[in-house]
Amino acid sequence: YLLLPDTSSIDITVSSPAEPKGKRPPVLVDGVTLNGPTLDIREAESFLRDAMPIIMEEAVWKATDVKEKVCEWRSPEQLKDLLDLELREGGEAHPQILQRCRDAIRYSVKTGHPLFFNQLYAGMDPYSLVGRFITEAINPSLYTYEVAPVFLLTEEAVLQKMIEIIGWQEGGDGIFSPGGSVSNMYAVNVARYHHCPDVKVLGLSALPRLVMFTSQECHYSVAKAAAFLGIGTNNVYVIPSDKRGKMIPAEFEKQVQRAKDEVRRRTMNGVSKVVWCQICYACWGGGALMSKKHRYLLQGIHRANSVAWNPHKMLMAGLQCCAFMVRDKTNLLQRCHSAQASYLFQQDKFYDVSYDTGDKSIQCSRKPDAFKFWLMWKAIGTKGLEERVDRALAMARYLAEEIKKRDGFRLVMEPEYTNVCFWYIPPSLRDMADGPEFWRNVHAVAPVVKERMMKKGSMMVGYQPHGDKANFFRQIIISPQVSREDMDFLLDQIHSLGMDL
Amino acid sequence: YLLLPDTSSIDITVSSPAEPKGKRPPVLVDGVTLNGPTLDIREAESFLRDAMPIIMEEAVWKATDVKEKVCEWRSPEQLKDLLDLELREGGEAHPQILQRCRDAIRYSVKTGHPLFFNQLYAGMDPYSLVGRFITEAINPSLYTYEVAPVFLLTEEAVLQKMIEIIGWQEGGDGIFSPGGSVSNMYAVNVARYHHCPDVKVLGLSALPRLVMFTSQECHYSVAKAAAFLGIGTNNVYVIPSDKRGKMIPAEFEKQVQRAKDEVRRRTMNGVSKVVWCQICYACWGGGALMSKKHRYLLQGIHRANSVAWNPHKMLMAGLQCCAFMVRDKTNLLQRCHSAQASYLFQQDKFYDVSYDTGDKSIQCSRKPDAFKFWLMWKAIGTKGLEERVDRALAMARYLAEEIKKRDGFRLVMEPEYTNVCFWYIPPSLRDMADGPEFWRNVHAVAPVVKERMMKKGSMMVGYQPHGDKANFFRQIIISPQVSREDMDFLLDQIHSLGMDL
Repeated sequence: YLLLPDTSSIDITVSSPAEPKGKRPPVLVDGVTLNGPTLDIREAESFLRDAMPIIMEEAVWKATDVKEKVCEWRSPEQLKDLLDLELREGGEAHPQILQRCRDAIRYSVKTGHPLFFNQLYAGMDPYSLVGRFITEAINPSLYTYEVAPVFLLTEEAVLQKMIEIIGWQEGGDGIFSPGGSVSNMYAVNVARYHHCPDVKVLGLSALPRLVMFTSQECHYSVAKAAAFLGIGTNNVYVIPSDKRGKMIPAEFEKQVQRAKDEVRRRTMNGVSKVVWCQICYACWGGGALMSKKHRYLLQGIHRANSVAWNPHKMLMAGLQCCAFMVRDKTNLLQRCHSAQASYLFQQDKFYDVSYDTGDKSIQCSRKPDAFKFWLMWKAIGTKGLEERVDRALAMARYLAEEIKKRDGFRLVMEPEYTNVCFWYIPPSLRDMADGPEFWRNVHAVAPVVKERMMKKGSMMVGYQPHGDKANFFRQIIISPQVSREDMDFLLDQIHSLGMDL
Repeated sequence: YLLLPDTSSIDITVSSPAEPKGKRPPVLVDGVTLNGPTLDIREAESFLRDAMPIIMEEAVWKATDVKEKVCEWRSPEQLKDLLDLELREGGEAHPQILQRCRDAIRYSVKTGHPLFFNQLYAGMDPYSLVGRFITEAINPSLYTYEVAPVFLLTEEAVLQKMIEIIGWQEGGDGIFSPGGSVSNMYAVNVARYHHCPDVKVLGLSALPRLVMFTSQECHYSVAKAAAFLGIGTNNVYVIPSDKRGKMIPAEFEKQVQRAKDEVRRRTMNGVSKVVWCQICYACWGGGALMSKKHRYLLQGIHRANSVAWNPHKMLMAGLQCCAFMVRDKTNLLQRCHSAQASYLFQQDKFYDVSYDTGDKSIQCSRKPDAFKFWLMWKAIGTKGLEERVDRALAMARYLAEEIKKRDGFRLVMEPEYTNVCFWYIPPSLRDMADGPEFWRNVHAVAPVVKERMMKKGSMMVGYQPHGDKANFFRQIIISPQVSREDMDFLLDQIHSLGMDL
């Protein structure tokens, strides 16, 4: 409960009625002297003037220079001491804050560095970066046309072009979301609303039990979505995949039958109806759609009812940039998510309020994530995006062929896209017979090599186990700043870091 | 289904074995020539060198200068023409892209302008802005300590300090989320998981019907959360408020009884158990906690089980900066949301993996939203944040008193915080008797005044109806760049824009 302020204590006094002409006298209200602005704009200018060269030099140019380190590893305990994290009563002077900026940059991982291969994003695009600086300076939120005209229109333009590239000839609709996982939640929510519009008002407790089908190799956000949206992870039916990770059609049929049987057994009325919404999670792979040569990898994507595609990954638009798109043309996103807040989405505005698209979203304030992508796209064109994708795929192919040529390296499988998964086998294990003991030993190699590369700061590549497969390296190629020599360096480096194991 | 690439067509040729010494010969792979990086770093540098002064001059200094316009209004149709939104096959040269940057800034609403009072955020803090430029340049994602050490530690430090300020003496846990609406979804999901941990695995269809209680004056994201999480908006019991918008305790009791009756009637087993998780939505009001003078407005907040608080609002940390915090100390966030992706959250890492906090989140990639707040807090201290809050409240009080003094202005109610809601009554209506016709006329005033101020670009303030109340202006005061003279200007301006109505 909020208490009412004691208005009797409010004291409004014109403290000096004899101020110089033109300047208004200050007023004392509730213990605070009010007159001009209290933010010293000269001081702010001088701070930004000093800070910007540090950012450009340390966080942009050095951070993307192949001759510099990818990271300057410190343990959590060391770094806590170095950063002096505590927030205190008093502030700090500019030189100290500038040093904090330098330290924050120094101990951060340089994700734009050519030798950062650790995640499904990498590299630095100068146009996207300028787009991001603009939006951070302007600080917009995308509820309504009134407060974000440029950013809503660029979002619409980007979505329409992406929808065209997916191949939905009748068009579609979409929204940028804070991450592929949230896009997947959108997809599930829109699908269930499409088939059971009552869910919005009545909730799942009033509906027959709903189930989801997904591939064994799906992203972990499918489980997160099932839990968050109240469906439950047990109601996700997982379809086994073949050795290359492709869903097996015959197994799909079996899972559908299993779900029908189980739902029938558990529901009172015995009804189980199967309806379909096909959801395509192309957050990472969507980039291939830009390439005439490689878009066959996503053959059939236009048959999906919804698509999640993150240009911050393969297309280097900068985190975050995540489009969720639906083939629907009946305002499904709006109907499914709207709550019609009267303080934002007034209907008596003087412009066409169909441009106030914020109520399509589950968010209220929302960042302008499409603008940086739009600006980059304008600068390098569809052709420029295509060339980057083609080059990254060729580079992955080159790396895979090098791996096959080298002793002690073994591909987990032939790459299809730009993820190249491989084992490094140190000399001590090369003569050991293939078997459980061999793989137990191999399993222990990648974590040690990773530790050594992090502590050296020479490069970063991820590793993981998968099913019954021992830990392997998962190399991701994205950025046009990656050179062929970097691929050779990567393999040399892994060998030199792990040859004694 | 993905098709296998036809590896037979892959062509790896060393095209020129006689390259100059030291430089490696290019390699042709799959039609692409691979050697050094293809991003021209000199060109990138020259672009950024040209773009940064435009951003600083137009999007920072002019955009926050009270003598400049708040917005340069264009209709959607006009702006589409001006921006030339289409994405084409070819790219554009730097001068053209620089012009696009200027245009994007020019036609954007200047949310940092002292006369932007339209939303629950405003102003420009130079430290936060530098923090945001750093994180955009570094482009991190907050899954693991390994890739975002600085940003995970600063997030933890900020959360711990906010938890201390809330008053949870035993501590707590938290995560930054992409918006207060998402924080509210977290709150609901964590609450139901806490009482019904089965929900994660079994889903709502296996549980008794769950209901939520909320105030009539709650944020619209409560309805969005109920829909998205599968609870259903009909299962939200809305508790009437008094005239000042405060929940009425006696009505709360009635709604609980109503819910018990309805659930009992509809469920098979007749069981309805009432368990409580108190969720506090302090996204906007949380700022008052920084002020010794005003924190009584949130008296009792420490009794809540979870709190959502957005420092991007009153505390000017920049969009987005939204903390969701729980009083729980048993790793509830992790247990509720985790999906244990083996490719990210490997347990055989060489450092303490409890710092890999990403699995607490419903997101996978996640922006470092706490860092900018941490840097600003370091720069101005708790005291600086407190002074801003105190000043904004005093400014709101000044405005309210001015409104009371002026003819034709009428407060909707006494402000408690920095939202000042008021009607403007043009001279033509001042002698009309209070009644339905009067209010019908008043209702039409704000949209016209708003249209005129937007087209003039002189300032921006929101308006809205509320319940049976006619459209009123909703003035929000946040930024230390707002002067007392701006308050006078605001009222003068509304009068001059609406006096003929």
